[in-house]
Amino acid sequence: MRKSVYTFGNGKADGSAADRALLGGKGANLAEMSRIGLPVPAGFTITTEVCNHYSSHGGKYPAGLDKEVAKGVAFIEKAMGKEFGSRENPLLVSVRSGARDSMPGMMDTILNLGLNDETTGSLARKSGNPRFAWDCYRRFLQMYGDVVMGVQRRAGEHHEPFEEVIDHLKSERGAKSDLDLDVEGLKELVKRFKRLIKDRTGREFPADPKDQLWGAIGAVFNSWNNDRAVVYRRKYGIPHSWGTAVNVQAMVYGNMGETSATGVAFTRDPATGEKVFYGEYLINAQGEDVVAGVRTPHPIAQLKRDMPKAHAELEAVRRRLESHFRDMQDFEFTVEDNRLFMLQTRNGKRTGLAAVRIACEMVREGLIKPEEAVRRIPADSLTHVLAPVFDAEDRRRAIKEGRLLAKGLAAGPGAASGKAVFNAEEAVEMAHRGDKVVLIRIETSPEDLRGMIAAEGILTARGGVSSHAALVARQMGKVCVCGCGDLAIDYGKKEMVAGGRVIRQGDPISIDGTLGEVYAGKIKSAPSEVVQVLVNRTLDPKSSEAYQNFAQLMRWADKLRRLDIRTNADQPDQAANAIAFGAVGIGLCRTEHMFFEGDRIYSVRKMILAENGDQRRAALAELLPYQREDFAGIFRAMKGYPVTIRTLDPPLHEFLPHEDEAIRETAAKLNTTPDAVRRRVEALHEANPMLGHRGCRLGNVYPEITEMQVRAIFEAAAEVMAEGTPVRPEIMIPLVGYPKELSLQLDIVNRVADEIKRQTGKRIAHQVGTMIEIPRAALVADEIAAHAEFFSFGTNDLTQTCLGMSRDDSANFLPQYQEMEIVPTNPFASIDRGGVGALMRIAIEKSRAVRPKIKLGICGEHGGDPSSVEFCHELGLNYVSCSPFRVPIARLAAAQAALKEKAAKRKPRSAATKRGSAKPTKRVKAKSAPKRNAKRR
Amino acid sequence: MRKSVYTFGNGKADGSAADRALLGGKGANLAEMSRIGLPVPAGFTITTEVCNHYSSHGGKYPAGLDKEVAKGVAFIEKAMGKEFGSRENPLLVSVRSGARDSMPGMMDTILNLGLNDETTGSLARKSGNPRFAWDCYRRFLQMYGDVVMGVQRRAGEHHEPFEEVIDHLKSERGAKSDLDLDVEGLKELVKRFKRLIKDRTGREFPADPKDQLWGAIGAVFNSWNNDRAVVYRRKYGIPHSWGTAVNVQAMVYGNMGETSATGVAFTRDPATGEKVFYGEYLINAQGEDVVAGVRTPHPIAQLKRDMPKAHAELEAVRRRLESHFRDMQDFEFTVEDNRLFMLQTRNGKRTGLAAVRIACEMVREGLIKPEEAVRRIPADSLTHVLAPVFDAEDRRRAIKEGRLLAKGLAAGPGAASGKAVFNAEEAVEMAHRGDKVVLIRIETSPEDLRGMIAAEGILTARGGVSSHAALVARQMGKVCVCGCGDLAIDYGKKEMVAGGRVIRQGDPISIDGTLGEVYAGKIKSAPSEVVQVLVNRTLDPKSSEAYQNFAQLMRWADKLRRLDIRTNADQPDQAANAIAFGAVGIGLCRTEHMFFEGDRIYSVRKMILAENGDQRRAALAELLPYQREDFAGIFRAMKGYPVTIRTLDPPLHEFLPHEDEAIRETAAKLNTTPDAVRRRVEALHEANPMLGHRGCRLGNVYPEITEMQVRAIFEAAAEVMAEGTPVRPEIMIPLVGYPKELSLQLDIVNRVADEIKRQTGKRIAHQVGTMIEIPRAALVADEIAAHAEFFSFGTNDLTQTCLGMSRDDSANFLPQYQEMEIVPTNPFASIDRGGVGALMRIAIEKSRAVRPKIKLGICGEHGGDPSSVEFCHELGLNYVSCSPFRVPIARLAAAQAALKEKAAKRKPRSAATKRGSAKPTKRVKAKSAPKRNAKRR
Repeated sequence: MRKSVYTFGNGKADGSAADRALLGGKGANLAEMSRIGLPVPAGFTITTEVCNHYSSHGGKYPAGLDKEVAKGVAFIEKAMGKEFGSRENPLLVSVRSGARDSMPGMMDTILNLGLNDETTGSLARKSGNPRFAWDCYRRFLQMYGDVVMGVQRRAGEHHEPFEEVIDHLKSERGAKSDLDLDVEGLKELVKRFKRLIKDRTGREFPADPKDQLWGAIGAVFNSWNNDRAVVYRRKYGIPHSWGTAVNVQAMVYGNMGETSATGVAFTRDPATGEKVFYGEYLINAQGEDVVAGVRTPHPIAQLKRDMPKAHAELEAVRRRLESHFRDMQDFEFTVEDNRLFMLQTRNGKRTGLAAVRIACEMVREGLIKPEEAVRRIPADSLTHVLAPVFDAEDRRRAIKEGRLLAKGLAAGPGAASGKAVFNAEEAVEMAHRGDKVVLIRIETSPEDLRGMIAAEGILTARGGVSSHAALVARQMGKVCVCGCGDLAIDYGKKEMVAGGRVIRQGDPISIDGTLGEVYAGKIKSAPSEVVQVLVNRTLDPKSSEAYQNFAQLMRWADKLRRLDIRTNADQPDQAANAIAFGAVGIGLCRTEHMFFEGDRIYSVRKMILAENGDQRRAALAELLPYQREDFAGIFRAMKGYPVTIRTLDPPLHEFLPHEDEAIRETAAKLNTTPDAVRRRVEALHEANPMLGHRGCRLGNVYPEITEMQVRAIFEAAAEVMAEGTPVRPEIMIPLVGYPKELSLQLDIVNRVADEIKRQTGKRIAHQVGTMIEIPRAALVADEIAAHAEFFSFGTNDLTQTCLGMSRDDSANFLPQYQEMEIVPTNPFASIDRGGVGALMRIAIEKSRAVRPKIKLGICGEHGGDPSSVEFCHELGLNYVSCSPFRVPIARLAAAQAALKEKAAKRKPRSAATKRGSAKPTKRVKAKSAPKRNAKRR
Repeated sequence: MRKSVYTFGNGKADGSAADRALLGGKGANLAEMSRIGLPVPAGFTITTEVCNHYSSHGGKYPAGLDKEVAKGVAFIEKAMGKEFGSRENPLLVSVRSGARDSMPGMMDTILNLGLNDETTGSLARKSGNPRFAWDCYRRFLQMYGDVVMGVQRRAGEHHEPFEEVIDHLKSERGAKSDLDLDVEGLKELVKRFKRLIKDRTGREFPADPKDQLWGAIGAVFNSWNNDRAVVYRRKYGIPHSWGTAVNVQAMVYGNMGETSATGVAFTRDPATGEKVFYGEYLINAQGEDVVAGVRTPHPIAQLKRDMPKAHAELEAVRRRLESHFRDMQDFEFTVEDNRLFMLQTRNGKRTGLAAVRIACEMVREGLIKPEEAVRRIPADSLTHVLAPVFDAEDRRRAIKEGRLLAKGLAAGPGAASGKAVFNAEEAVEMAHRGDKVVLIRIETSPEDLRGMIAAEGILTARGGVSSHAALVARQMGKVCVCGCGDLAIDYGKKEMVAGGRVIRQGDPISIDGTLGEVYAGKIKSAPSEVVQVLVNRTLDPKSSEAYQNFAQLMRWADKLRRLDIRTNADQPDQAANAIAFGAVGIGLCRTEHMFFEGDRIYSVRKMILAENGDQRRAALAELLPYQREDFAGIFRAMKGYPVTIRTLDPPLHEFLPHEDEAIRETAAKLNTTPDAVRRRVEALHEANPMLGHRGCRLGNVYPEITEMQVRAIFEAAAEVMAEGTPVRPEIMIPLVGYPKELSLQLDIVNRVADEIKRQTGKRIAHQVGTMIEIPRAALVADEIAAHAEFFSFGTNDLTQTCLGMSRDDSANFLPQYQEMEIVPTNPFASIDRGGVGALMRIAIEKSRAVRPKIKLGICGEHGGDPSSVEFCHELGLNYVSCSPFRVPIARLAAAQAALKEKAAKRKPRSAATKRGSAKPTKRVKAKSAPKRNAKRR
């Protein structure tokens, strides 16, 4: 076993920022700060390897650790000029956890360790503040008794035992608050705390600081495996095997009077990214006071007036930190009697907006290279850059007023306010009247589509982040909160009950799709600047710094990535948005979404209710001009980019009405009886529609449907080409499992295409391909590739069939499965590499064997998920396709995947875990991006 | 190109029975008969290769064919002492198709070719019967005009043109029937027929026999691709590439007076297999007369009196055919003026009963070896041996009386009569009262199970041959007709309308599950002898020859096969039946079928409605004794054979009531409100239950369910072991996709098992394994095998997920898909080797890599399908498991698979198509078995 204890302080350190894995983030950065000459109270770090040894050896330490710790203590004593346990000049230390990734508040911390009856006396003398010393002591006893010795509330007890002792004493002495206890009172409290500890544990409180120290070290290691830490790691994907380090560090005090202070600061504004010194502090206070919010801290700028020297030092520290770590830092400091100490630094958390701005500005400042800027920004965080936002002040007010009704899943980022409406038709009507509306449904279906288009936001009680509502919302860039189980929605009464309030149709509500929150009443919001520039075109790009940064980042990303990014879009305006966001083609145009526009649904129903081929062809003839018009619109919007059009996919019953009123209406429109309609609805009912009569099974049983759609596509193509716009249609046949399913449809496509090319004289360059969305297709991909010019992986359905797991029904077990770590991630959010990924590999290998240049893409919802984009990059696909508002995310993720691959090629695997200290700065950077991604997976 | 024309006759032949592929079945056997000295009219066969050349070269013949045909004609002329086109002694020939497999009536035939005005005169003179000669001539003109020259009814015409000419002439001459036309009349008819041909085709009828011959040859080759032939081949799996041969053979006449006759005979009785000369004949008649049924033919025994010499010759022929072909033959003969001619022989079609008897007796007679007996019997035909049967006479009467109501899918072979009943509960009640009932449902669900048990037979309007009804029926050995779309069932009125009749509850009906027929009224039936011996034990095995033969066949099969056969059984009596049928274990015991017995469904519902773990555990505690009792019963019945028990699989909503009345009843029983029940029903509703919260997803979210089931299994095991019966439980976890799903359930199983083993002191040797039924499981089989001692392929669900195809919903497209040849077979009947088979291979390879001795089986419905059994043998599985009544079929199929493998190893692939004539007899045998299987695929 290598060295277990690493010291830091006095401008030196055994470790460095590169030792994050071994020393934890806190320990590594304390070492690094010490190394670069920042004023760090001396201390030492016990490595994560000791934690793992301790965990796997039933709480035993490795041999020799005691000696190393003793040396570490001696080092601190020397550096600080104090002595552990000394009556004259006692050294006090803090003992803190520190994992590789920050896990705030999850593990234990012990402060003021080293106090006993005697050292407390010295502290009182040296500080000249006996009350402060005894208050420290009684706090230490309480913390130690609780954390290390396990004096905690037992089942049946109403109060924490230490609090109960305090309350007793206060009532005895007529004290209202702790502050009313004087030194004598605190001394009495100390006595009683010791007695409590003895009573509860049968053991004396250890007066010897060395005993205290070992107790605290063990407690911190144990806390790595406490419940909340385990749950936290599971949630953020942190391996249990990482372990925590323990940091033992000399105490310094910000509460030694008016010449002392403590604070937290950022080197730039973490909300906006602006390059200002940002933070807050309190005079004569301890660190907890700043965080706890009991006293209101002052903005950091004010420190210049209160403590000009400390402020100047801090400004220097701030510059040094940024120039050294080359990232925005979040740090803690204490001023003890006018002397500045740095207690911690780490890369600061920031909003997506800030992330982009900081990265771009750091490149301009020469701090980092563009590649680093691209690597560093979590791709998903770009949603913040694009989403409309609630005014922060207005939101706070709403919470204060108790208007936060419920929390659901954050399914479509952004903020929306509007009148509540409980059905799609009335949503459309109200929107026509100029109202902004939020559509509220138990769950949505394609029949709700027009209402969803009309609404500002969508709120559902059922369904996960890949439910119909979420999927459509993301594609449209709509705000969406879904799966909000606490809503009791009553369609009949057109109202819902939530958070104890009744919301009736027309009442204003607000939803935050970034946080998953639902509010009563209106909260102010606005579209993001990027959207104002690119989509609404209401803002001059030159006047928006946010847009400029975003555009710069995208340019860098585009230079790095190998994957093309396409979009899933069914409407010309969606297509136009996607181009604005950087898509270079449509990867999935679902023809059926068009079927719900206007009155055409009745032609669709006529087609479905047809009793023979002639009737069906007549109904299809009615649909032809509509579809032609739709496709022409898309071709125009796409300006020559390829457009992948999928032929009809959903089962026909999805287009039929199901409620009595709608059935009557349809019957009247189509000159038939409600009974006839109902019979057809029943006949088409399916036990498992996902696995039913859909996809190319429709086009093969009713070839006239495919024929009409193909005719519409090519007639539209000829029309748009005649206008001078190039057109590149790619016809995609869905749900193919058998080669002949594709070849028969291919025959229709080519026959109709040839006919129209002949008639119009236009040379329309088209391709025909298929979706790979059922396992069989992947397994016989060689046979299918014989007929297909391209494959597009339909990973939504491929996930459902490969896993035997319905997206819609998985809510009953998938959350528990994630909790129980049966599934590593939600397979509908991130591609399941073990199963779905294996099928993709088989399909790629088999198809390229027979058709080496086959074009391969993905058009499932996964196309907008950074981890899945990375996987697609690894697989060597040609493109990913995602909803328009996720195109920038996919562009960034694709660039990051390329960078990661490059890095992996540059250094062999073993180097990633090699320790060293040569050029720590760069090492930290190189590791931080993938780590951050990993956390979000 | 090799030789195109093969002659036969005069005790010689160019070809032999081994040339079936080249000469077709008819041609090869004519050659063989000639070769062994049987009296065959001379002729020649044009090969199937010519057919393929003709098809692929737009109707052109290979060079040199004309010369070969001319030589062939010369051969016939010489052999028969007649001359083609001669006025004195004209040769007349028949031109017939003849494919490798018989395709009765699908292709064209032309008789009496060679007739023209002049040769007809000679025929009249030589036969001394001018009317016969002119009748032949006008028939030839009609046949040739229709088949070769295409004079057929046109759209809008009501009659066949030739028939219209006849009708005109008859009315002119006051003739009532054709027989009233004298020679002059027939001559006039000939004149008018020629005119008709000229008018319709613009061409003269060709008088030159050589022209006639080439016309006929082309017509026969063309008829290989006519619609009905194509449809037939598709239905019976005959490759289009086989082509037909053309047989040109000298005509002989059975209608030359009282010394002539014609007949059809079998060397043994094809219905019972009895070794008697079986057949029929007519004196002074042509072949068609026997088949057409205008005159009633006489039984062959009578020929001994009518034509003693011919009869004796035929008896000799019969013996020679059997000793030579070593199989029961179906042959045609003609006696022309006391001279016997053999026109055809082929292996006779037979019932399953006959197949078994004939094979067994031929072994005893030394004609064939046991291996050949096993190879030769189509495994599926054993259903006939096991199924109850309708009395043939009684069935004919029912048809005559118009009582055949409808036809559906033959889903559970056998015959059943009983009172119609439209719901399960009343079925049970009526059965209790002693009535035999037939349960009629639109479709069945597990709720109908008790009714299905109570019923003699099951009839459904919806669902295919693997619907719930069919599946359960086969498992129970019940008669079942399903998917009978012509039934209009009204549950409310408790009646159905079918075939124009109303059948009310209580009315007698009869269903034939072997033929898929539904009759009004009762038809007599009885269980098969084998079932009487093995299941009912009402018949002494020694007194049943049918049973003895069956048992002998099974013994032979068991010696040959490598696969073990297990059964799918949920009840002790099913298990006992399966053992009687030869199963050596249970491969799938579905625990949930037990949940519907008696009142226990209410405990199940209580468990589902539970609001917390405690309530759920209480309800499960109620179920525990029931389940224990169930398992004990099965362990007792299985007498130490392994029993694979699957933990709870279906989604919970399958156990809840859905109709108002049942909901109220359940609420009352469980002391809750109907609304509460309804809410739970709604909450559990799933969009795609097949892909929903089921299988181990239940056991993982509610571990207490698994715990209860495992407890019941091991307590039952201990109890039965205490009685002295060995027990081998195998716990099977369903629907595993992720390794941890299995390992978590494994932990429960082993914990509970250990506890009970400790408590009872019984050493229960158990195994834990999983089903491989979703693609992901196959793809990560190595990871799963780390936790599993066995895999059982659940090919039902694996087919549904791999193909993305719901068994229940596929009726809307799968029949068309088979028609369109998109799917080679119904994937729910026979394993889809390309997709599902590929997953199985992956799973086997991956699992054996980490656990070489892992036990592998299959428990889908495919386990009873011979083609799938063969595939499982190829894959090297350890066992297949199927419903009890299919166990004998699987035993036979497994033996056949082993034989096929042995044969393939013995001779390299190329030998199979090599021609030759050395020992034709054996060759024919070796090929016939696989071919017959292929036909049934």
